[in-house]
Amino acid sequence: MDKILKEIPQEVRNRAQKIKAILFDVDGVLTDGSIIYTNSGDEIKAFNVKDGQIISHLKRLDFVVGAITGRESALVERRCQELKLDYCFQGAKDKFQIVQDIAAERGLKLDEVAYIGDDIIDLRVIKNVGLGAAPADALSYVKDEAHFITKKSGGNGVLRELGDMILAQQGKLKQIIEDHT
Amino acid sequence: MDKILKEIPQEVRNRAQKIKAILFDVDGVLTDGSIIYTNSGDEIKAFNVKDGQIISHLKRLDFVVGAITGRESALVERRCQELKLDYCFQGAKDKFQIVQDIAAERGLKLDEVAYIGDDIIDLRVIKNVGLGAAPADALSYVKDEAHFITKKSGGNGVLRELGDMILAQQGKLKQIIEDHT
Amino acid sequence: MDKILKEIPQEVRNRAQKIKAILFDVDGVLTDGSIIYTNSGDEIKAFNVKDGQIISHLKRLDFVVGAITGRESALVERRCQELKLDYCFQGAKDKFQIVQDIAAERGLKLDEVAYIGDDIIDLRVIKNVGLGAAPADALSYVKDEAHFITKKSGGNGVLRELGDMILAQQGKLKQIIEDHT
Amino acid sequence: MDKILKEIPQEVRNRAQKIKAILFDVDGVLTDGSIIYTNSGDEIKAFNVKDGQIISHLKRLDFVVGAITGRESALVERRCQELKLDYCFQGAKDKFQIVQDIAAERGLKLDEVAYIGDDIIDLRVIKNVGLGAAPADALSYVKDEAHFITKKSGGNGVLRELGDMILAQQGKLKQIIEDHT
Repeated sequence: MDKILKEIPQEVRNRAQKIKAILFDVDGVLTDGSIIYTNSGDEIKAFNVKDGQIISHLKRLDFVVGAITGRESALVERRCQELKLDYCFQGAKDKFQIVQDIAAERGLKLDEVAYIGDDIIDLRVIKNVGLGAAPADALSYVKDEAHFITKKSGGNGVLRELGDMILAQQGKLKQIIEDHT
Repeated sequence: MDKILKEIPQEVRNRAQKIKAILFDVDGVLTDGSIIYTNSGDEIKAFNVKDGQIISHLKRLDFVVGAITGRESALVERRCQELKLDYCFQGAKDKFQIVQDIAAERGLKLDEVAYIGDDIIDLRVIKNVGLGAAPADALSYVKDEAHFITKKSGGNGVLRELGDMILAQQGKLKQIIEDHT
Repeated sequence: MDKILKEIPQEVRNRAQKIKAILFDVDGVLTDGSIIYTNSGDEIKAFNVKDGQIISHLKRLDFVVGAITGRESALVERRCQELKLDYCFQGAKDKFQIVQDIAAERGLKLDEVAYIGDDIIDLRVIKNVGLGAAPADALSYVKDEAHFITKKSGGNGVLRELGDMILAQQGKLKQIIEDHT
Repeated sequence: MDKILKEIPQEVRNRAQKIKAILFDVDGVLTDGSIIYTNSGDEIKAFNVKDGQIISHLKRLDFVVGAITGRESALVERRCQELKLDYCFQGAKDKFQIVQDIAAERGLKLDEVAYIGDDIIDLRVIKNVGLGAAPADALSYVKDEAHFITKKSGGNGVLRELGDMILAQQGKLKQIIEDHT
């Protein structure tokens, strides 16, 4: 997994070194941004199994993990519960306030928080946390503010990519892999 | 967001400068063109969250926004209502007539209207409005008539790309981003 | 639409010139090959709006159009009816026999029939009709037998690409486009 | 189908020559890794028709075929039954133990078993069977342990690619194709 870090600039690695909480947007990050409706009134959302797998490793290592989304649906709540997230904020109007509240509650400084989002509503958080990230297919003016841009697009495992990078930098990924080999 | 305009030809920027209404096709534009059925008789459609976000900004800035589609389904109506579109025409036979009617009702000239579509039925509108656009994956003979071809394919945020370009050209995107940073 | 023909070899154009019937596989051709199930026992399939549009033009020009699939589901029947296909064979064991029967019923020679398929079960038809085609993402040993390989992958409008090419070669596409411009 | 083998290293071909059982992960292998929920509590999974087709050929040639997944859902059971798989293990905690049990039950040595998986939980199996494979979009540290990396990504026919390669190497693919041409 050293290859993971090889292409990461030292300044981003320094930021990753301090992270104790990973927070994330849902649509366009955990998903590819598709808003899927059925004619009978149901809604559908596609998450990624690789994002889910990293959450379980992060939780075992005592990272704080949480989703913050401006939209609302029962299936996001279901995915949050399945992943046993520490936080699952839906209908968020001011994401930066929520991030500050979580940090305060956990006794974390903002530079111990990583956040990944893809749209205008995420800008303030991305700019002000320790490690602000955006998926490859985020809007250009969002990526301009991010410290780290994932190679993958939303829904294709961007949280996994961010989490793997942080765990690799903190020397924790090697152990996970060795335990399974 | 100046990068957004850098690659846009001046002639397209001149067209974008005048736009006061943005109208659009649904299948192949707001979606990737998938017609999705279930065995039990339901229908599914996947929209894009980034297209939805730009609509709210466009409405706050008093742009007229509307969907015009040749097909019909309850879920398009639902998406139209969620986005609070000014117009939501389904089962359209003559799209150019509808565009002319909307322009007349709003007191707009055709060169103040932008439209994005991807198939033969959209050709007359694309050719006759102020800014006729087509997604990257539209048919070649449709793209031949368009003033502006988005980099993205249908369903991946082509309305966002068109809207961002128009707002950037009119000097309105900068303000939106600054309000959120 | 002359660009459509520019890259087509003359031998393929000669084959396209004679076509009066266009028959096609469903999974991997009209769709991307996804077999989609729900936990509650339903099935889902995603077709492409651009394929549907070309069918209506082909029917108005008196082409015979039909689907032949080895699988079975109510939603394929629904799509066949929506597109008003002349034939909709499901659960097909011997596709070449079905193609021969259709040709006989319509008084067509095999070299007046085009067919597009993507797997082993389609090989005999592809090899023996006038214009045998395969999508870009068909198996290599299927593409080896095809006269024409579409640029697009299954589900992304391969029937449209095949139909547009045939109509362009027969001088009929120009008229359709002019009627809509 | 000789082209299939042309790019395969001799060492991988030697491994493929011995294979009598093909076992595989589900999410990220048979599917693209999407975990799809509906708001009403249903779950959806998209398999690939090309993977299904190769299973029927493998079974007719007396290969042992089976799925081993860490997750659980009724629709995986449905797909297993449709494909008439010999094994369908869900909720697996220790995949390598399951693979060893299957081998013992069938009187197979581990080097007669092929396995394809894409995540940490698959590492031990990939490393210890005769032919350990991973999809193109598997995690880099998983691909590092695989003998064979498919060109395709999960859900796009990686089992087909693996199966075709094994059948080609064992001289059995040619016969299947000739029977259908």
